[in-house]
Amino acid sequence: MRHTISVTVENKSGVLARVAGLFSGRGFNIESLSVGETLDPTISRMTIVTRGDDRIIEQVIKQLRKLIDVIKVSDLTGTSFVERELILIKVKARESNRAEILRISDIFRGKIVDVSPATFTFLITGDQDKAEAFIRLVKPFGILEIVRTGKVAIAREV
Amino acid sequence: MRHTISVTVENKSGVLARVAGLFSGRGFNIESLSVGETLDPTISRMTIVTRGDDRIIEQVIKQLRKLIDVIKVSDLTGTSFVERELILIKVKARESNRAEILRISDIFRGKIVDVSPATFTFLITGDQDKAEAFIRLVKPFGILEIVRTGKVAIAREV
Repeated sequence: MRHTISVTVENKSGVLARVAGLFSGRGFNIESLSVGETLDPTISRMTIVTRGDDRIIEQVIKQLRKLIDVIKVSDLTGTSFVERELILIKVKARESNRAEILRISDIFRGKIVDVSPATFTFLITGDQDKAEAFIRLVKPFGILEIVRTGKVAIAREV
Repeated sequence: MRHTISVTVENKSGVLARVAGLFSGRGFNIESLSVGETLDPTISRMTIVTRGDDRIIEQVIKQLRKLIDVIKVSDLTGTSFVERELILIKVKARESNRAEILRISDIFRGKIVDVSPATFTFLITGDQDKAEAFIRLVKPFGILEIVRTGKVAIAREV
C-alpha cells in the first residue's frame, strides 16, 4: 500500500541521509521525496511517498521518531489530505503540431515556461492522475526531458 | 554560492541515502531536494540545491559521478535554466479578512486547494522570489502550515 509520510526535521547536515537510510536499510524504496524549508529556516519539512506493508511502515515511523533532529512524523495515509506535485516537461514541437500541443496544455492548465523553435517546456501541477494523463497525451510528440518534484501533502481542515 | 544540481539515478533502494550522505559527509547542508520518477520508472531524477564553495562542490560532483546507481550529474549553475517550486500553504482566514487574502492569492495566481470556515489552503508555484513574496504578504494573517517541494530545474533550449 502507498503511504504518504510528512516529516518535520531540524534543517541540519546529515538528517536527510539518516532518514533516507532508515528506509533503504529496511529495503523500502522511496517513490518520491521532497524537502524544503518551513517558515522557520532552521526547520525543514519532508514529504515521503513509499510503498510497503502497513505493519512494517509503522515500525519505520516509530524509528523515524527516535532519530536525532526529527521533530515530528505523521502518516497522512487514511486521513483527509491534499496532495500535489509539480512537473516540468520539455516536449518536441514541430510547426505542424504546435497548435495541438498547446491545446492539450490548455486543457491541463499548463503554463509555458520556455519556448524554442523546436520545443515547448510546460509546468503542470496536480495530483498523480492529472500528471500521468498529461504525460500520456504529450508522449507521442516526443518528451525530451521531465523533472518532477515528487508529492507534497497537507492535511485538510474540517 | 548557491548551486542547483540535477542528478539522474537508478530508482533503487539506498541511492538517495548515498547521495545525501555524500553531501553531509562533506558538511554541506542540502537547502532543498526533490526526487521523482522520470518517464522510465526505473530511473529517477533529483534536483538538489546547496550552498558552498565552488571548488568543493566540484569535488562533490566528481564523487557523485562515481557512486553506484548514479547515471548523470549536471551542475546547472551558470547555465540558462528554468527553476520552479510548488508550495502548499494554510492560512488563517477570518470573515473580516477573507476577501483581502483572496485578492493577494489572485495577484500571485494562487489556487485554492482547501477551504474551511477558519482557513484557506493555497497552492503557489513560482521561483524563489515569488514564493517568498507571497509568504511575506500572507504572514500577518497567520500561517498555520507550509510545505514546499523544493526546486526543480530544467535547462532552457536555444
